[in-house]
Amino acid sequence: MIIVKKFGGTSVGDTKKITAVAAKVAEAYHKGEDIIVVVSAMSGETNRLLSLARDFNESKGAAVDVLLATGEQVTVALLCMALKNLNVPSVPCLGWQIPVETDSSFGKARINRIPTNRLKEILTDKKVVVAAGFQGVNEQGAITTLGRGGSDTSAVALAAAIEADECQIFTDVDGVYTTDPRLVPEARKLNNITYEEMLEMASLGAKVLQIRAVEFASKYNVKLRVLSSFQKGEGTSISKEVSEMEKAIISGVALNKNEAQIKVIGVTDRPGIASDILGPVADQNIEVDMIVQNLGEEGITDFTFTVSRDDFQQTKKILEPLLTELGATRIDGDTKIVKLSIVGVGMRSHSGIASKMFRALAEENINIKMISTSEIKISVVIDEKYSELGVRCLHSAFELETGQ
Amino acid sequence: MIIVKKFGGTSVGDTKKITAVAAKVAEAYHKGEDIIVVVSAMSGETNRLLSLARDFNESKGAAVDVLLATGEQVTVALLCMALKNLNVPSVPCLGWQIPVETDSSFGKARINRIPTNRLKEILTDKKVVVAAGFQGVNEQGAITTLGRGGSDTSAVALAAAIEADECQIFTDVDGVYTTDPRLVPEARKLNNITYEEMLEMASLGAKVLQIRAVEFASKYNVKLRVLSSFQKGEGTSISKEVSEMEKAIISGVALNKNEAQIKVIGVTDRPGIASDILGPVADQNIEVDMIVQNLGEEGITDFTFTVSRDDFQQTKKILEPLLTELGATRIDGDTKIVKLSIVGVGMRSHSGIASKMFRALAEENINIKMISTSEIKISVVIDEKYSELGVRCLHSAFELETGQ
Repeated sequence: MIIVKKFGGTSVGDTKKITAVAAKVAEAYHKGEDIIVVVSAMSGETNRLLSLARDFNESKGAAVDVLLATGEQVTVALLCMALKNLNVPSVPCLGWQIPVETDSSFGKARINRIPTNRLKEILTDKKVVVAAGFQGVNEQGAITTLGRGGSDTSAVALAAAIEADECQIFTDVDGVYTTDPRLVPEARKLNNITYEEMLEMASLGAKVLQIRAVEFASKYNVKLRVLSSFQKGEGTSISKEVSEMEKAIISGVALNKNEAQIKVIGVTDRPGIASDILGPVADQNIEVDMIVQNLGEEGITDFTFTVSRDDFQQTKKILEPLLTELGATRIDGDTKIVKLSIVGVGMRSHSGIASKMFRALAEENINIKMISTSEIKISVVIDEKYSELGVRCLHSAFELETGQ
Repeated sequence: MIIVKKFGGTSVGDTKKITAVAAKVAEAYHKGEDIIVVVSAMSGETNRLLSLARDFNESKGAAVDVLLATGEQVTVALLCMALKNLNVPSVPCLGWQIPVETDSSFGKARINRIPTNRLKEILTDKKVVVAAGFQGVNEQGAITTLGRGGSDTSAVALAAAIEADECQIFTDVDGVYTTDPRLVPEARKLNNITYEEMLEMASLGAKVLQIRAVEFASKYNVKLRVLSSFQKGEGTSISKEVSEMEKAIISGVALNKNEAQIKVIGVTDRPGIASDILGPVADQNIEVDMIVQNLGEEGITDFTFTVSRDDFQQTKKILEPLLTELGATRIDGDTKIVKLSIVGVGMRSHSGIASKMFRALAEENINIKMISTSEIKISVVIDEKYSELGVRCLHSAFELETGQ
């Protein structure tokens, strides 16, 4: 049974924690698992390295990737030492040694291919593969990195390539919750969740797993499991389907605070207006999230959308010179908003979910500023000040603390 | 003109110093030099990494090499950034990327071969090669290191492989001196010195260059130059021959404080006695330096030799159980001794050097405990307390401050 186990930065934050990780790996090794461990840089290390780069005004490029790749390399070396102390034989495998073949987009490289002959050789020798996450090598033999948080992606990609039985993501939480337990103490750990739900949860601000890793897992049908590095427990399994019995209508409530709203007011409603507005924004690599177009009277309409808060000012700057051309009167914006969502595959087969959500919010006098729906998600934009209240009232309305 | 430039740990100790190194490289680049820069880890970094390894009771092995190799990798990345800021294009080259092919002796690997096609490609593109010193890769693709101080060796090996016009070793001193300027303020910087002299000086405690690097340079006839990273100047050139005009009889006075004396007293003088004593010592990987056998009366002799101070206790422990077998009466030892030497290729063609040396020491009442000579060197063992006095009186006796 081949298992990929990924340990993030906080799980390998110091040599003591690395020893604890080694103990976990050793236990699984003695149970007979064939193990590929994927590690991140020790917490704080990537920032330390980036601060060195800042002295040269660098934040991305080939040299930055050479620099950052040392972070995982250190962890790989130390974990091999810790395993040796427990008499578990292991082989250090850096990105170029595996090799994780990527394109040449330094700082955000995409994986092209992972040959597995070397990995299989090591596993056949009954040794543990200790692989550096986050890094790869391009066609020219230069070191690349997959971008921050890329170690999750490395783990899933390795699991997919070698057709692992499971890809376990060890982290500082013990699983995926119905919502942020810091906001709602009654939040309940989910035993199972689908890729789709996890994707929606992740994209909505639940930072247990990187979106890209979940997409990858879904695409290649890699069974994921989120577990605690520090506690025992089964964690949360993430797969294609959840058995009918366990299927909840709503799996969770997610909150995304990194949203800002842009409203283009009084535009002429004509074909192509959406792309006239969003085209120039997309050209600047700004991602637009929610989009709503209100049907106005006499062919005049308001066009509203959200971007991440970092992009708010730039988006306004892009659109302002285009106002006349768009036939718009002015641009309004609001950065004091949040996106609140409920997610669940059960929505597909149940009606009345949306109205139940809106009613719950109305009962708390929370005004809805935008609505957007997908097959397994309903999102609303509300005032930022209602964030916590909104999460709590929805969590309770859908009885998530008990699992319906 | 291909020039290899090596910068050690103190020369790249922080980002400011790396910027200064980049400026030096940029100046040479704009003069039209084809440049391969070889860098060490930032000073303190290797010790920091080793202290992490110590938490796992590791000091050598494959994983330690993976760990230590990150030190130079960081410097390589940062120097590439610094060069970019000066509009000098460069390519980071780690040990495995060059590749520096070594055997598998982790922590003290020997270089087997350095293919130069990749390096030549980069130089032809008018880019600077920024190479990581100290590291290589074995046949299995595992990272190896050449041992501490190995960056000098990397630089010379690269220079030899690519047939560079000169290999410049930038360090915190501005050249090779007739003796340690901290002991003798009149010490004079040498403009030229031969490999042999440098080898003797280095092995005698002048720590400007690694012995292995000088041996390598001598073997492949690589022209070396020792220069300051921080000041302007021509430094000291080290080559096969020094022109007759410049040739001094004595080039320098060297002091080695890391010596301890072992005396095996009253051994039977018979064939094979030297190897009976030194064989067991060598078997424990202890290096013996000076060896003197006094011819005694009636076939009884004293056998004296020196080892490094770290090995003193172990050497005694090895020999004590063998006393009866050796037919010796007892073992004496002394760790409060030093080795004082004069070095110079001119010795070959001049007589009376030894007696001049002994007279100078006698005039200061410095007792000589052992003598050993080679073609270009005379070494004596004296009491440690006379160290400074001994160096000064020889430096003055041979008029080194004026260059004879």
